[in-house]
Amino acid sequence: MSSSKAATKEETVCSIARTLEVVGDKWTFLILRESALRGVSRFADFRRELGIAPDLLTGRLTALVDEGIMEKRPYREPGSRTRYSYHLTAAGEELRLILAALQQWGDVHRTPARGPSHLRRSAGAGRPVSVAFVDDTGAVLSAEDVAFTPAQGITR
Amino acid sequence: MSSSKAATKEETVCSIARTLEVVGDKWTFLILRESALRGVSRFADFRRELGIAPDLLTGRLTALVDEGIMEKRPYREPGSRTRYSYHLTAAGEELRLILAALQQWGDVHRTPARGPSHLRRSAGAGRPVSVAFVDDTGAVLSAEDVAFTPAQGITR
Repeated sequence: MSSSKAATKEETVCSIARTLEVVGDKWTFLILRESALRGVSRFADFRRELGIAPDLLTGRLTALVDEGIMEKRPYREPGSRTRYSYHLTAAGEELRLILAALQQWGDVHRTPARGPSHLRRSAGAGRPVSVAFVDDTGAVLSAEDVAFTPAQGITR
Repeated sequence: MSSSKAATKEETVCSIARTLEVVGDKWTFLILRESALRGVSRFADFRRELGIAPDLLTGRLTALVDEGIMEKRPYREPGSRTRYSYHLTAAGEELRLILAALQQWGDVHRTPARGPSHLRRSAGAGRPVSVAFVDDTGAVLSAEDVAFTPAQGITR
């Protein structure tokens, strides 16, 4: 991307591009999935669950900490050296909506043979939960009822 | 990813990973943004707006057509040869929710100096629109009220 002036200019104003700069990488998304959906936090557990090479995992986790998406906490088990676990910050928790939107699209348009692997349910009542467009009165809108309009004074 | 057995196994069941297989690439996302948010459809326009190399653009557009996200339509201007434009399919239109979720996170957590470049508004009334978790009664839920639970019979 850095080879393109146009794309670089884009990235300074477009929030989609800015978010993708942080999380626009498959391994990063999969690490966030393990954390947000399955509660994985320890380095060794990420490594085992994802089958990711240690140097790649270290790089991605370090970047997520630097970006304020995860925080690193020391822990120590009896007889072992200090190790680290990684936990979502408040900003990281808000990525759950993006993960859920990706999941919802995949459930419908790339349905696994055995059906969706995870379900979204409300914590209390256990009701099915979806990701949707909602206006400021709380009304749910269909995608065709949503317009993306340039902000005033910004042409792109 | 293909070097990892664990990740490959994941991708057969996890809808997030399956969606990322289709759209998990920055250029692909940016092409979809130009199409979904700004109505760009012609090859030359994608190329100019994104500053993307023609071979990269051809590759990404071809993949999007193969995946059923975009459809290719011929057009011809007077005195010119037949050219092609690319339009979102119904499945592609549903990616707008993912784009909007990425945009919303970036607006808040990576706010551009001049503010968000695009606003989401309801097509009729022009009300502000956000992406949110909604249960099957239409009630909007906060992220902490949503649980991701393994589907029955599938352990991950």
